Amino acid sequence: MSTADRRASLRETLIDIARTRIVAEGTGALKARDLARAAECSVGSIYNVFGDMHDVIMAVNGQTFAALGDYVSGAVARSAETDPTARMVVMAEAYLEFAATQPSLWRALFDVPITDQSDLPDWYLQALDQLLAIIDAPLREVYPDLPDAEIRVRTRALFSAVHGIVLLGIEDRISGVADDRLSDMIRFILSSATGRNVI
Amino acid sequence: MSTADRRASLRETLIDIARTRIVAEGTGALKARDLARAAECSVGSIYNVFGDMHDVIMAVNGQTFAALGDYVSGAVARSAETDPTARMVVMAEAYLEFAATQPSLWRALFDVPITDQSDLPDWYLQALDQLLAIIDAPLREVYPDLPDAEIRVRTRALFSAVHGIVLLGIEDRISGVADDRLSDMIRFILSSATGRNVI
Repeated sequence: MSTADRRASLRETLIDIARTRIVAEGTGALKARDLARAAECSVGSIYNVFGDMHDVIMAVNGQTFAALGDYVSGAVARSAETDPTARMVVMAEAYLEFAATQPSLWRALFDVPITDQSDLPDWYLQALDQLLAIIDAPLREVYPDLPDAEIRVRTRALFSAVHGIVLLGIEDRISGVADDRLSDMIRFILSSATGRNVI
Repeated sequence: MSTADRRASLRETLIDIARTRIVAEGTGALKARDLARAAECSVGSIYNVFGDMHDVIMAVNGQTFAALGDYVSGAVARSAETDPTARMVVMAEAYLEFAATQPSLWRALFDVPITDQSDLPDWYLQALDQLLAIIDAPLREVYPDLPDAEIRVRTRALFSAVHGIVLLGIEDRISGVADDRLSDMIRFILSSATGRNVI
């Protein structure tokens, strides 16, 4: 193997180990020393491949974003829904399902401290953009006359809104919301925002 | 001072110190030993007053919930708005302001792991109920025919939605949303949900 191949191979190994650890214990427990031991390499080798542990978590998050995008797109494709509001409900419920079944990976997406927008690597911003573009599509059908920038503001608003419902719902933060009510809450927000009644 | 008075006084002292530490460093840094040193008491004395450090944070959170409720109600009272949608926008923007100006105390409200609903003390659930009741009021004007339980589902949906927008917006999680767009996002969700145009 060339040096570049060994580097790429170690990178994949480290991401796999880091993901397994995040699934088991969350991002807080991720330490370079443990990662080096599991990968049978030195701590220095890790820092040859990644700038710091933050970069390792970002690499795992990049894969999680891609998996989340596939999961949400797949759910829409499998559903026979053509109505844009109904498609957005399918997306939101797929998001809820992903968060509920992969809580640690999902939580890690929002655990990394982001202090400066410019710190986010291009590939990360692209992965995020692809995820938001999935929501832009039905919203553009609902609001055909809105410019792209305004569609994106509404996409962000709805993504954030559904994220808030999923987050507080999964953690049962606001007292005793049964799971079927979470779906009602999602439908209320999405059907209101699109002016269609799917409740 | 009687034993009960001393206990009550130590309780207040400990809450004040804990709040100051949470403001400075968040909940993660809160240790019984540091608290005891600052309060000039033994660690054992803390556990005479609070069951564990979780209870200390919950006590701080109880005060924060009350302060948040006052802040939001105060903003609505000061505004001359009578329209229910406009009042809800004032509430949401006051929530955003509270979170932006008191980020550590606000974050602490959602930092405490809640594993079992039954673990939440009654006074905590009451404080939460009072906060949600502030939102119920204008929503009941918008939907006068809905039963209380359905109003509360929509209140929870809208609180969660605004929370999601504030959370992701403050942390700049979904790439470069300027602050004035946060207000647009809040207005889009609330005016859609109430069927009124305040954008």
